[in-house]
Amino acid sequence: MAVDISLIKKLSCFQGLTKDKLDAISQISNSVCYLPGHILFEQGQKGKTLYFLIDGDVEVLFKSAYTDPRRVDMISGAELVGCSAMVPPYTYKATEQCLTEVEVLEIELEALRNLIEKYPQIGLKMQEHVIKILYDRILHFRHQI
Amino acid sequence: MAVDISLIKKLSCFQGLTKDKLDAISQISNSVCYLPGHILFEQGQKGKTLYFLIDGDVEVLFKSAYTDPRRVDMISGAELVGCSAMVPPYTYKATEQCLTEVEVLEIELEALRNLIEKYPQIGLKMQEHVIKILYDRILHFRHQI
Repeated sequence: MAVDISLIKKLSCFQGLTKDKLDAISQISNSVCYLPGHILFEQGQKGKTLYFLIDGDVEVLFKSAYTDPRRVDMISGAELVGCSAMVPPYTYKATEQCLTEVEVLEIELEALRNLIEKYPQIGLKMQEHVIKILYDRILHFRHQI
Repeated sequence: MAVDISLIKKLSCFQGLTKDKLDAISQISNSVCYLPGHILFEQGQKGKTLYFLIDGDVEVLFKSAYTDPRRVDMISGAELVGCSAMVPPYTYKATEQCLTEVEVLEIELEALRNLIEKYPQIGLKMQEHVIKILYDRILHFRHQI
């Protein structure tokens, strides 16, 4: 485990963090590639991993009590995936599946929580980024209403 | 300005914070009542204030490039209002208007940012709460698709 700090530096959610914090994040990150069809995680599962999509497309599948899983969103390019597992009850809110070959950075959430306890600035920065992503999704829905 | 700490303690987004932090929040909070029809803030405006809706109903009005403002959501009971202004670019993403008489706690965002710099745990806790609220809104939309 561990990736080069230059990979971490590029991600928008870490912009503005000091080198020691970027270095600490790189130490708990792992670079992985997946084939199309691979399921990153399933709706309702306890979240163990946070993903930073570096390259490729991921579809977001959502199942309600009355419907089968269906696509409600798609994520492309550099973005956070699985961020619902960062906050209580620490579960994934949808199933996310690779549509293409994808390259991700994986971070174990337990290691991340320990890091945030040591450096709260990392948590503030990441959660601020998650809030921005979620507002973008909400705006997307509002435009459709 | 300043409200009783017992009011702050009740709000779910501050659950688990220590007394010194709750006290610091109460010092920068102000209790205000508004009449039906009062506009708390307008879409696109720079955010100066964060609101904790204590009692009453607020409607969320959204205007796209192609439509007039129309209701896309309603907020009732104890909830955060105006949280988009907590993160860059620090603007409100919708217009929010009182539907009934409402009671709110108001916090100046600049004072809140200074407080979070001193006590990052307050920021982490509040952001975590905002993320949960936004996921609830997204799930609401997903159920409608």
